[in-house]
Order: sequence, then structure tokens, then C-alpha cells
Amino acid sequence: MRFSPLLDELIEALRCLPGVGPKTAQRMALQLLTRGRDNGKRLAQSLIDAMQHISHCKQCRIFSETETCEICASLHRDQTLLCIVENPIDVSAIEQTSRFRGKYFVLLGHLSPLDGIGPEEIGVPQLISLFQQGHIQEAIIATNPTVEGEATAHYISELAKQSAIKVSRIARGVAIGSELEYIDPNTLAHALMGREII
Amino acid sequence: MRFSPLLDELIEALRCLPGVGPKTAQRMALQLLTRGRDNGKRLAQSLIDAMQHISHCKQCRIFSETETCEICASLHRDQTLLCIVENPIDVSAIEQTSRFRGKYFVLLGHLSPLDGIGPEEIGVPQLISLFQQGHIQEAIIATNPTVEGEATAHYISELAKQSAIKVSRIARGVAIGSELEYIDPNTLAHALMGREII
Repeated sequence: MRFSPLLDELIEALRCLPGVGPKTAQRMALQLLTRGRDNGKRLAQSLIDAMQHISHCKQCRIFSETETCEICASLHRDQTLLCIVENPIDVSAIEQTSRFRGKYFVLLGHLSPLDGIGPEEIGVPQLISLFQQGHIQEAIIATNPTVEGEATAHYISELAKQSAIKVSRIARGVAIGSELEYIDPNTLAHALMGREII
Repeated sequence: MRFSPLLDELIEALRCLPGVGPKTAQRMALQLLTRGRDNGKRLAQSLIDAMQHISHCKQCRIFSETETCEICASLHRDQTLLCIVENPIDVSAIEQTSRFRGKYFVLLGHLSPLDGIGPEEIGVPQLISLFQQGHIQEAIIATNPTVEGEATAHYISELAKQSAIKVSRIARGVAIGSELEYIDPNTLAHALMGREII
């Protein structure tokens, strides 16, 4: 904008948000100033609270402001089932299905040796100690169906097998509501190989 | 997310930004927590500073943290030319062209009687006193080429004429780089009527 340094600074700061370019940041800043000053102040306070107080759950590594997150602390969760995901948002996605009542472990990424992300960074030592505690019977690996996600899944499955834990991988196949003509051959191949008898 | 009240609160607060729905807000919050905590804190501080200290320039009504904005305070601006726009962002757009060296007046909206926005709300009394000061020779009306923008332009042009000020409206026509086949008939009609002899 150039005519207000504070406004310029706000526009620049808003660009740290994913998917926000200069134009969007400008629109956001101006809208907050025009008819959302209270919202803006509330957002500032929420940001401060979240950035300062949210850490990771000691057990599953999900974001939590308490030492142990609600899911890990719950007595109603199946201790024998562990679902391993890449990101906290994946936990949220799985929770929305209401089909999983076990516990989670969040890798906070996937193996990517070229970027310097090895087993240490994705919490493998912690995962191994979980496996060795003996109460887990099945590990469901729900990393993303990408090359890196599959590699990470393979690596973790080997670890789990060493602790004599049953390992499963979420099914890869056609998405509900999709049309076969638009599905990539790789996915369709998985859908055929993983077919279920009805 | 449900497992972190502070995170839920941050996601909810982010939704005050224009164009940010629940999914985007979640992605933003998680990304800030994962790899942008310093950015998050900086954004919070910028928001507080901006919401508290930015007000409107007393002369042109643009956003400014000082009583008079940089443009109004400048001695290098042509005092005889006044460009009237709807929003602060429009000033930014015109400044980017580097083709206007006069001053601005920001209406902060357009006439919209059904929404209770009349002449008072768009700063008409202030505009009239500007017109009556006598140093303005031409008022360029650059409200949006929408129904409301045109109505507002017409209303202001009458006021300017009462103070014997020359009034102009920004040209309506085909946009540079556009293709005739995709231009709406109304715009094309304007482009034909406003043709220039070459």
C-alpha cells in the first residue's frame, strides 16, 4: 500500500499463511480494518495463545496444550490398535469417519533422506518403544499413498513385525463417488488387486 | 480438531479472514504450528498494531496511522486534481499505474439506500467542503463500473458541477489483452461509443 507502514507490515505478515499471496493478503488486511477490528484482535490473541502454549502430546506427538492429548488420556480408546499417520490433520480426518476407536501415532512427516528427514525426525525411536511395551496388537499404517508415504509405511511395517505386531495398510482403491474413466491406472490396478468378494 | 481447545479456537478465529473456510483455517493453523511459530507471533503483533493504531486520514479517508496520510501530506501532488474512489484498495491500484499525481478521496463504500448507506456514510459532507475550498479543478470519478458505482458517480458528478468543478469518469472499454469474443455486450457498447480517433 505504501501509505501506511503498519498496514504494509500487516499485509506482509499475513503472507506467512499458506495459499496467501500479496493480493489476498491485501484484501484480508483491508477487510479486517474495514469491518472486523474485533475479529482481528481476537485472531491476534488466539495466535499468541496457540503459538505459546500448544506443544506435542508426549505419547502420540499430536498437537496438544496438555502433556497428554485427549485421545491418549481417554480410557475408552482401544489400547491394542495403533493408527500411524503423517500429520495431525490426518488424525482429524480419521476421527471424522467415527470408524476408528484405537490410538494414534503422528510421525510429523515422512522419511525423506534427501531432505535430511530420517527415522529420528519422524519419531521412530518413540514408536519402537511403544511397540515394545507389548499392548499393541495391530498397527494400521495410514501414511499418505504417495511414494514417500509408501516408503515410510514399508519401513515402519518392518519395525512392527520385529515386535511381532500385526501390520495393516489402509486400502487403496477407487474413491466413493468417483468415475472409473477419470481414475489413474495405478489406483485402478490397486483397486483390482484388492478386490473384495461380495 | 476437538483434541486441543486452543487449536480449535485458533481455527475458528482464522475464519474471520475473507475466503477462509473451515478446511483452509485448519490447514493454516496446523502449518503455523508445524513450521511457522515465529511467523505466527509476528502476525499476531502486526494485527494488534494495525487494529489499534490504523485509523483514517482526515482529508482523504484512506487508512493511515497518522492524522494525514502520506499522499495528502505530500507537496509533490497536484492539488487541482481529485480522484474519487470507493475503497482504499482502489487507491493502491491507481498508484500502481504511476499515471495519476493528484490527490484522492475515498468514499469507503457506495450509495446503497436499501442497506442504509446514504450520502453521510460515504463522506459526502466532507467531499462538498473539499469542493468548496476552491482549489480543485477536476474531479475524476473512479468508482467501480457497477450499478451502484455508476449511481454514486452520477450523484457525485452533480455535486461537483454545483461547485463549478470539471468532472470526468474513468473510461469504460475493453481491457488490454482481452479478446472481443469474450467481452460482454455492455462493455463492448461502451468501447464503441467511447472510441478514440487515431
